[in-house]
Amino acid sequence: MGKYLFTIAYKGTNYAGWQRQENALTVQEEIEKALCKLYKEPVVVMGASRTDSGVHALGQRCAFSVTNDCIPAEKLPQAMNTNLPMEISVLMAEEVDENFHPIFDAKAKTYVYKIHASSLRNPMFSDISWHVYHKLDIARMKEAARFFVGEHDFSAFCAANGSAKTFVRTIYSADVYVEQGSGLICFEVNGNGFLYNMVRIMIGTLVYVGCGKIDKDDIPSIIESKSRERAGITAPPEGLCLMEVFYN
Amino acid sequence: MGKYLFTIAYKGTNYAGWQRQENALTVQEEIEKALCKLYKEPVVVMGASRTDSGVHALGQRCAFSVTNDCIPAEKLPQAMNTNLPMEISVLMAEEVDENFHPIFDAKAKTYVYKIHASSLRNPMFSDISWHVYHKLDIARMKEAARFFVGEHDFSAFCAANGSAKTFVRTIYSADVYVEQGSGLICFEVNGNGFLYNMVRIMIGTLVYVGCGKIDKDDIPSIIESKSRERAGITAPPEGLCLMEVFYN
Repeated sequence: MGKYLFTIAYKGTNYAGWQRQENALTVQEEIEKALCKLYKEPVVVMGASRTDSGVHALGQRCAFSVTNDCIPAEKLPQAMNTNLPMEISVLMAEEVDENFHPIFDAKAKTYVYKIHASSLRNPMFSDISWHVYHKLDIARMKEAARFFVGEHDFSAFCAANGSAKTFVRTIYSADVYVEQGSGLICFEVNGNGFLYNMVRIMIGTLVYVGCGKIDKDDIPSIIESKSRERAGITAPPEGLCLMEVFYN
Repeated sequence: MGKYLFTIAYKGTNYAGWQRQENALTVQEEIEKALCKLYKEPVVVMGASRTDSGVHALGQRCAFSVTNDCIPAEKLPQAMNTNLPMEISVLMAEEVDENFHPIFDAKAKTYVYKIHASSLRNPMFSDISWHVYHKLDIARMKEAARFFVGEHDFSAFCAANGSAKTFVRTIYSADVYVEQGSGLICFEVNGNGFLYNMVRIMIGTLVYVGCGKIDKDDIPSIIESKSRERAGITAPPEGLCLMEVFYN
């Protein structure tokens, strides 16, 4: 018997998200197939975050238990990667306690959302960013993002089909900056948990602030309203990347 | 009659480089096809740099003349992009003098080469960087890169099948740094011209410095030797990106 925690990177472009589905290829399925090959037993993994179709990850985590504990943790990434498609890579494997839970034990997560603001498309950025066709006021977006920080009821930033019991989450940091070199606009947010589509609605709202459709000082009242209609659109998945999941 | 200069970005992964070829798809061919559609006449473009198969561009330039001068420059990028595949994008178009020459009038070019140094692959970086499986000493690579700066005969950094008349080129700046966020190692080089495979041999040599196969202080003697065998390997194309071509 053994329980392990993987750190995983994937390019989500061609996957129907993290979670196993009947009729579409998912990252979870690919990882379970590779584990099954390695261990010659059916293995179920539990991801820390159910990333949506098209969303990327540089630091997704998932845990699994095996009865036939035959591979040392430090050999697992290499062994997995030879059995995984090129779009998925195990970056690290660690042995964890049998009581470890990848979702409940997660203290915080960091996401980065990238935007390419230009009247013309750029093929070097198309898979990894949201192409917004107009200019954005980055300073205003930066100020608006600060209002997300703190403990709030984020009902206004949750897609209707979310299944959360409580909509209260704590955001520890939220910043907007321009990435050196690429010039892409980045929204980096760290919090103790995220509702369904929360980051994508946050950035959709920040883009509305950046192009003047929403005043930056209206963010607190949008949060308070708990009304999804007051917030901006749900940004597309390709700009989103799960950067890190934090455990004690 | 009119002559125009395009600024172009492309993801080179699925192209056999810039220059038109008989049996392979190239960026030049795609651009000429799109121009031919727009102008209803055969158009030949001349690129500032003949980027190799798999090499990317964020700031390639190319010029062309048309007899039927019917589209204003500011409308050209959008008109072109609707006729180009997603991997290619015209970012800017300017009218130029009929004597303008995209190669001879170029004063300098900037290339960036990216390296992902890790024992494990990462799908988010695979198309745009060279995956080097061992750790690299970045400080040493940075010092080594400085020796490229200046006017030198770069015969040692030219592939055998190059067709240059002189091997003397001036490098204005050469730096190695770590890209924020991604952690990729970047080699940024600006010079008045580059020999065939010159940047890729430079970075191949810097990687040898970074892993201890070549001493950083040997770079001047390698340059002086004019011997291709003394330099490092030719790095693969996927890490290379033509960033900018400078004109007066």
